[in-house]
Amino acid sequence: MEERASLDIAQQSDATGDMETEAFRRYGHQAVDWMADYLANAGSYPVLSQIAPGDIRRSLPDQPPFRPEAMEEILADVDRIIMPGITHWNSPGFFAYFGITGSGPGILGEMLSGALNVNAMLWRTSPAATELEQVALDWLRQMLGLPSPLFGVINDTASSGTLYALTAAREAIPGLHIRQQGMSGRAEVPRLRYYASQEAHSSVEKAGIVLGVGQDGLRKIGVDNSFRMDVAQLERAIEEDLAAGWRPFAVVATVGTTSTTSVDPVPHIADVCERYGLWLHVDGAYGGSAAVDPSMRWVLDGCERADTLIVNPHKWLFTPIDCSVFYTRKPDIVKAAFSLIPEYLRNTESADDAVPNLMDYGTSLGRRFRSLKLWMVMRYFGQEGLAARIHEHIRLGQLVAQWVSESPDFELVAPTPFSTVCFRAHPRGVDNEAQLEALNERIMNAINATGCFFLSHTKLHGMFTIRIAIGNLRTTEQDIHDLWEAIQAELAGV
Amino acid sequence: MEERASLDIAQQSDATGDMETEAFRRYGHQAVDWMADYLANAGSYPVLSQIAPGDIRRSLPDQPPFRPEAMEEILADVDRIIMPGITHWNSPGFFAYFGITGSGPGILGEMLSGALNVNAMLWRTSPAATELEQVALDWLRQMLGLPSPLFGVINDTASSGTLYALTAAREAIPGLHIRQQGMSGRAEVPRLRYYASQEAHSSVEKAGIVLGVGQDGLRKIGVDNSFRMDVAQLERAIEEDLAAGWRPFAVVATVGTTSTTSVDPVPHIADVCERYGLWLHVDGAYGGSAAVDPSMRWVLDGCERADTLIVNPHKWLFTPIDCSVFYTRKPDIVKAAFSLIPEYLRNTESADDAVPNLMDYGTSLGRRFRSLKLWMVMRYFGQEGLAARIHEHIRLGQLVAQWVSESPDFELVAPTPFSTVCFRAHPRGVDNEAQLEALNERIMNAINATGCFFLSHTKLHGMFTIRIAIGNLRTTEQDIHDLWEAIQAELAGV
Repeated sequence: MEERASLDIAQQSDATGDMETEAFRRYGHQAVDWMADYLANAGSYPVLSQIAPGDIRRSLPDQPPFRPEAMEEILADVDRIIMPGITHWNSPGFFAYFGITGSGPGILGEMLSGALNVNAMLWRTSPAATELEQVALDWLRQMLGLPSPLFGVINDTASSGTLYALTAAREAIPGLHIRQQGMSGRAEVPRLRYYASQEAHSSVEKAGIVLGVGQDGLRKIGVDNSFRMDVAQLERAIEEDLAAGWRPFAVVATVGTTSTTSVDPVPHIADVCERYGLWLHVDGAYGGSAAVDPSMRWVLDGCERADTLIVNPHKWLFTPIDCSVFYTRKPDIVKAAFSLIPEYLRNTESADDAVPNLMDYGTSLGRRFRSLKLWMVMRYFGQEGLAARIHEHIRLGQLVAQWVSESPDFELVAPTPFSTVCFRAHPRGVDNEAQLEALNERIMNAINATGCFFLSHTKLHGMFTIRIAIGNLRTTEQDIHDLWEAIQAELAGV
Repeated sequence: MEERASLDIAQQSDATGDMETEAFRRYGHQAVDWMADYLANAGSYPVLSQIAPGDIRRSLPDQPPFRPEAMEEILADVDRIIMPGITHWNSPGFFAYFGITGSGPGILGEMLSGALNVNAMLWRTSPAATELEQVALDWLRQMLGLPSPLFGVINDTASSGTLYALTAAREAIPGLHIRQQGMSGRAEVPRLRYYASQEAHSSVEKAGIVLGVGQDGLRKIGVDNSFRMDVAQLERAIEEDLAAGWRPFAVVATVGTTSTTSVDPVPHIADVCERYGLWLHVDGAYGGSAAVDPSMRWVLDGCERADTLIVNPHKWLFTPIDCSVFYTRKPDIVKAAFSLIPEYLRNTESADDAVPNLMDYGTSLGRRFRSLKLWMVMRYFGQEGLAARIHEHIRLGQLVAQWVSESPDFELVAPTPFSTVCFRAHPRGVDNEAQLEALNERIMNAINATGCFFLSHTKLHGMFTIRIAIGNLRTTEQDIHDLWEAIQAELAGV
């Protein structure tokens, strides 16, 4: 009975409603204090969780709870069991993959969305969610310096957006009727080809798998010394494929590749796409956000000619996961690729095309109210504040790049167009590649094991390359100083 | 300056960090009070937003804010501008589509996830998120009475899950190498066919469009008088298709169809799948959750033989959107369909298969920490509490069905296996179908215009059918009583 005493009224065995208002209020305040304390101390946890596989699983009961449990116990278990297994993307020492921040105003937006719990599949199922999505994405378009009109919707990830873009690109091929008739067993449908650089994200290849275009349908184009797509090679590839009977249908350019953050020459790629009638999709998931800083607006040069473009505010615009923006100049084609309206979703507004129903622009019918957090982030920081933060991250990235290039023991392996630095230790006299790989991997793992920082790697020209990706609002110059010291000490010590 | 006075320190023009801790705490508490008050009064808003298309858009500035704005103003605008455009899925009067509830413990889970902001793409990018997802889904499996082992991952929507399931089904076709070589321009790849009932969800057809199987690749099977798939017809269709050179590869059965919540005869469909070597995917997005109530466990009969199965806790297990569970008995095939590991995502744990990396089971690389809210919901209510709530909704649904069938002026148009009632007004003497359609549409629109309730419709046997879908924890017997009174009064008045 002691245990049951702390249960809420809504947990009594004859109760059928939700948690009581005052209990929700009490635990909500408790949660907010926990969140505020956590965010203030995010740097005090080991960045990369130090637990072993299975530790969390073993800490939890094998069987589900039959009776209700007290919220105090559940929240205590978050501290006791869950927190040791968290890798702290909020830490100022998080430099792996891409550093991100779910900022304060963004988290507040998530809280409100969670309470409203609307499904924005149709305009009428929450007009505010649909219209705010349009307004917020038009604001973002302006912040990025892109011309109007540009239709936008928010997806969970860039992976989804790229899949949708390539589905639309396939739909845009005239005369094949793939949506209706499919691709197989039809002599009139040739093998389809799309193009992206060797440095494009894995989701570009995954999209082709799902589409039935296959991995062979993606032709990977080589890059120049700065890891940017070689446009002459792209054009040669298209010509070769045409001669061999392939049907080219799309090119994916990347603004900020995942390994090196290189920026493909979009204006030249757009020329090629125009010449051959190919759909141009730009994956600006990481790099696109930088255009909010006027001095970085060049990164989107040529993107005004893209058929579809992705920018991820959950990567570098301080918006909590998930918020991936999908822009298109051809919403009619995207809609033609996806729209399918069963009777149970018909309604008066959608009948006359007066309003968009956002379910029509992809596969996911259900949609969270994701624009609220983005809108709150844009208002709270303002374009000025967002630009200042992007600018600061780039300044820090350039500083690290400078330290690397000035050191006799380290070398940059790629240029640093944004705030992500690709480098490796290369002490004088060590020129065996296998030895260098082992050395750099040891350094990275040792740094990660300290719990103070989290770095990840890539391979460039076959070389094991450490990445320092700066994107967290808590990261200061002192943090990158400490990181650089630690890396140097590690090299000296090993 | 007056305006700037209420800005936080983090909003000063030289600031580069996140919102300050104490500001976040202050606004967080304010948000929680707002949320608690909102949830307590969710029934006092018009359920279906009463605004006209464009109203929200016009209430917001055309241009993005350049300077930071005070959080007080932003939150005030949520009340002033956003709230009138919300359709209140939280209202006890919400009976459209499927009634849902983002319950208190679930919202608390969303809050914590929002603050942690981890991306659970790899085990190491947050071990707790990956392992809790495995534990929570194994708990849910047990609550649903499904046998072990069953691998589970959480997706945004059932639409995504169905796309993933059919991608895996295609991958399971032996000898075609579609993942590598694609489907078009290859004489050895026949036209592919999959099957679902006429009542299956639109996402089943959408998946085929994306996969390049095409709308023609989905053969829709007729239903019996209870809107359940006609298995004899399914078998005949497969035989016909085989004879005509199609390659059947999958059947999608539905447990709780969207229009009528009918339950396909899964055991018989499983027999057919076994006989013909077809992948069996079960869409239990709505109905699956009911199995948490022991008296409803029959709804998942045969699903232990499904290759893939979807159950949506964000539909009827009181978990905020989005949380769609994807189960599979064949995780190796799903992984073989999707896994693609670029160098920058390789790591020591994934190399030895010691742990799952959840990015390997679908297209979305990034993943929110969605299991936290589900785990909190399961613990807070317990299986007992969840079952009691499902049971109560079904009781209310049966009550409405009884009132309808006892009324001389109304008739049931489909059986009521769960808590969703399909009916129409059919007063004595009115037998013209066009007249009945106009009458029922008028009744529905009039009810929705009151702001007290929100109903949606479907068409069954060509008849305009009103649906009352009960699934909100705030809905009481009094609410459905009031609704039934209003519907009767509307009929009497028109």
